[in-house]
Amino acid sequence: MDDLLPSVAPEILDTDAIDLARAIRSRRISCAELMATSLDRIEALNPRFNAIVALQERAPLLARARAADEAIARGEALGPLHGFPIAVKDLASVQGLPTTMGAPLLKGFVPTSDSIFVERLRRAGAIFIGKTNTPEFGLGSQTYNQVYGATRNAYDPQRTSGGSSGGAAVALALRMLPLADGSDYGGSLRNPAGWSNVYGFRPSLGRVPAEGLDAWLPSMGVVGPMARNPADLGLLLSVIAGYDAREPLSIPGDGEAFCGALDADVAGKRIAWLGDFGGAIPYEPGVLAICEQALRTLETLGCVVEAAVPDFSFDALWQAFVTLRAWRTGARLMPFYRDPAKRALLKPEAIWEIERGRALSAFDISAAAEVHTQWHRAMLRFFERYDFFVLPTAQVFPFAVETHWPRSIAGRTMETYHEWMKCAVPATMAGVPALAAPAGFNAEGLPMGVQICGANRAELETLQLAQAYHRATQWPEKRRPPALAG
Amino acid sequence: MDDLLPSVAPEILDTDAIDLARAIRSRRISCAELMATSLDRIEALNPRFNAIVALQERAPLLARARAADEAIARGEALGPLHGFPIAVKDLASVQGLPTTMGAPLLKGFVPTSDSIFVERLRRAGAIFIGKTNTPEFGLGSQTYNQVYGATRNAYDPQRTSGGSSGGAAVALALRMLPLADGSDYGGSLRNPAGWSNVYGFRPSLGRVPAEGLDAWLPSMGVVGPMARNPADLGLLLSVIAGYDAREPLSIPGDGEAFCGALDADVAGKRIAWLGDFGGAIPYEPGVLAICEQALRTLETLGCVVEAAVPDFSFDALWQAFVTLRAWRTGARLMPFYRDPAKRALLKPEAIWEIERGRALSAFDISAAAEVHTQWHRAMLRFFERYDFFVLPTAQVFPFAVETHWPRSIAGRTMETYHEWMKCAVPATMAGVPALAAPAGFNAEGLPMGVQICGANRAELETLQLAQAYHRATQWPEKRRPPALAG
Repeated sequence: MDDLLPSVAPEILDTDAIDLARAIRSRRISCAELMATSLDRIEALNPRFNAIVALQERAPLLARARAADEAIARGEALGPLHGFPIAVKDLASVQGLPTTMGAPLLKGFVPTSDSIFVERLRRAGAIFIGKTNTPEFGLGSQTYNQVYGATRNAYDPQRTSGGSSGGAAVALALRMLPLADGSDYGGSLRNPAGWSNVYGFRPSLGRVPAEGLDAWLPSMGVVGPMARNPADLGLLLSVIAGYDAREPLSIPGDGEAFCGALDADVAGKRIAWLGDFGGAIPYEPGVLAICEQALRTLETLGCVVEAAVPDFSFDALWQAFVTLRAWRTGARLMPFYRDPAKRALLKPEAIWEIERGRALSAFDISAAAEVHTQWHRAMLRFFERYDFFVLPTAQVFPFAVETHWPRSIAGRTMETYHEWMKCAVPATMAGVPALAAPAGFNAEGLPMGVQICGANRAELETLQLAQAYHRATQWPEKRRPPALAG
Repeated sequence: MDDLLPSVAPEILDTDAIDLARAIRSRRISCAELMATSLDRIEALNPRFNAIVALQERAPLLARARAADEAIARGEALGPLHGFPIAVKDLASVQGLPTTMGAPLLKGFVPTSDSIFVERLRRAGAIFIGKTNTPEFGLGSQTYNQVYGATRNAYDPQRTSGGSSGGAAVALALRMLPLADGSDYGGSLRNPAGWSNVYGFRPSLGRVPAEGLDAWLPSMGVVGPMARNPADLGLLLSVIAGYDAREPLSIPGDGEAFCGALDADVAGKRIAWLGDFGGAIPYEPGVLAICEQALRTLETLGCVVEAAVPDFSFDALWQAFVTLRAWRTGARLMPFYRDPAKRALLKPEAIWEIERGRALSAFDISAAAEVHTQWHRAMLRFFERYDFFVLPTAQVFPFAVETHWPRSIAGRTMETYHEWMKCAVPATMAGVPALAAPAGFNAEGLPMGVQICGANRAELETLQLAQAYHRATQWPEKRRPPALAG
């Protein structure tokens, strides 16, 4: 009987999430139709792209979608994501769904409770259809693991989707889902958004309470929304943002301001183009040119775009980032490392973080924290002159899916697995909102994005600029992945 | 000419700060009269008690007070502390005033800018008359140092004032000043408030942006108000609380809610009396009895007081506190330690913190942070059953001023210089507001206080309970220090 439920025209999957929510509420489309159509798309394309993992069975999902329709029919109060098919990034716990973090060590683990932001998605009416794929423990901006395999680029399945929110970005690009959560430490939702021609929004530190690992030590890893346009980012952010007493450093207030009209006059906004940070960040030829082209769109809106670099040693910033990351990541994974049987199942990048973290002293952390603080102050001064800064979302175009990480860029050797994503570090270390937006395509048809970074806690202003940018964008960047044409 | 300015009846110095601000505004008392009267009191008593250090010269202070009066006469907009004589704790920078932190190493240092909360005091109209005394680098709950000497107890000058906000507490007890700032890591404003029969309020972590040492690592050391009644605590907190972008983890919003009517029905509030934490915290005989007596006042207000202890190993909590403190304190002082000439000028407790901190690994910090997080969760559960928890403000009564720290309590040896203030750690590690209120006196006339601790960010509710308690207090605890009788 379930299988007989009709799916509707697949064009519904191109609908903006905000409009979709309206259509569901006004019963122009049923939750069951949306679910069936989404599952059709996933069945058709997921075998080639592997964006969704732990996909749940069709029948019970359709049953839950029908129950959501009945709730509408009964006139019940509806959450903003009522009836939305949602897949949560496989780093976060969803009660009753397998949560592996892409790690063979966690294969078969099924959490008995939700992460904080997942609770909020559930309360908002989401129906969890599965998880989105991620690299092992989210390490590395390339989505491959030994549990589920690699997620392939929506514009070229021979290439990587990026990561660690690769599954989420590809699911959005292929219109499998209307919205997706991502998370980001060293560019994990920015890079795959850029490489999938979709949007991703790393919010300010503390905006979305999520991890629950250390109540009193803020983590540079944050959860944020991914979508196909800025207004939809705002919709999802409004659901997952807001204070929770379990995360005492989370920002008070709710996320209501982010959902709704993002129209604002952005003329006169001052944009700093950081580019290669004075030569400190190497790029594959073509990356900077596409981004500079995209910045012209901002100029047509009256923004003032200037090449500018904060007065700071990028190398010092990078070293502090590497230290702080090895400390926290290493400590988190150390329990696996201690057990030789488990250690053997960790990927080399995890071992590297643990061993580096284990060698650090407490005062090494203090020294890195001091650089972190100096960077904060330098950026406060920088934001006196500029409203936003912009960087590419990645230093290279999507590479072959078999390559774990690029060993060199523009003739410069990459010493670590994460050095090729240095361009993510200025925003991460500043703790500021960083919105990844599509920038354009290279001659091979591979997408690239720009990060638009606002001042700390200026999520709304950043969404507004992105909305203006999105509306003004004329170029073929709005093109859909080739797989959707077939 | 300055010296000819008349001081008024010294009773004005007993006036609550809120009433004083009103009297200044309505010109019932002039700023110059208040200043002259305060300076008279300081001249009379400070030589015996040594609460105020770096006292500024009378003539320019009176000139500034007269200028404040002229501003009132001109109808200018006035800050809430307009014309108030204020002395800032000598750990914080005040532009143009010596700031030694009680350290011979910093003797003669004069900052060229204000700490964030000092900027706010200045903007509120405070006139800085000097600093309040503190132990070297604020280490230890006993106010003595080799720059200015010891601050003596307001109720018995042969005994210590406690610390590290000893100067502030004694200045309040002796009515030298209407308000004072304190700071608190391991009880530094709670202990001296209790031993001076005044109030002190350690706010939630992030409520008052202050230190500026580590932008992205929250410090357990916080700045808070001290006063002679809860409403005055609220007045000062309203001035110094609120977000500042330089401290990105500070709590958004301003402090306006804390100033004004604190009247609330506290009947039915559930109070957990932690006492000796199931035997884990030793006390000098008499301390617990005075506090238990004070709790009866809360019962007369309809509060439900229960002996209760969170389900947690106090020893694990204490060890985590010691580790986290040695890490941060040690790292901050390490630059002095590196230079043998400077090291020779550090007090032994500073050396101890540095050497302990230097021996810690980054993963030791992670392990302590994990306990910190577990404590946070345990306290969230505890606050489901209780609205407040209460502890004594110190484990002993004020001891001889020559004693640096008690070597044993109730037959138990104190292994470290801070172990005798273990009772401060539950609130510090929970990051919650902890309000020190007078509890009573022992047979020798020495005061003791109680800490009233609310849930995280529940400053207003904590002030309200303290206000009800203050109003209901009947016992001789409201007695003034003997030195004021003379």
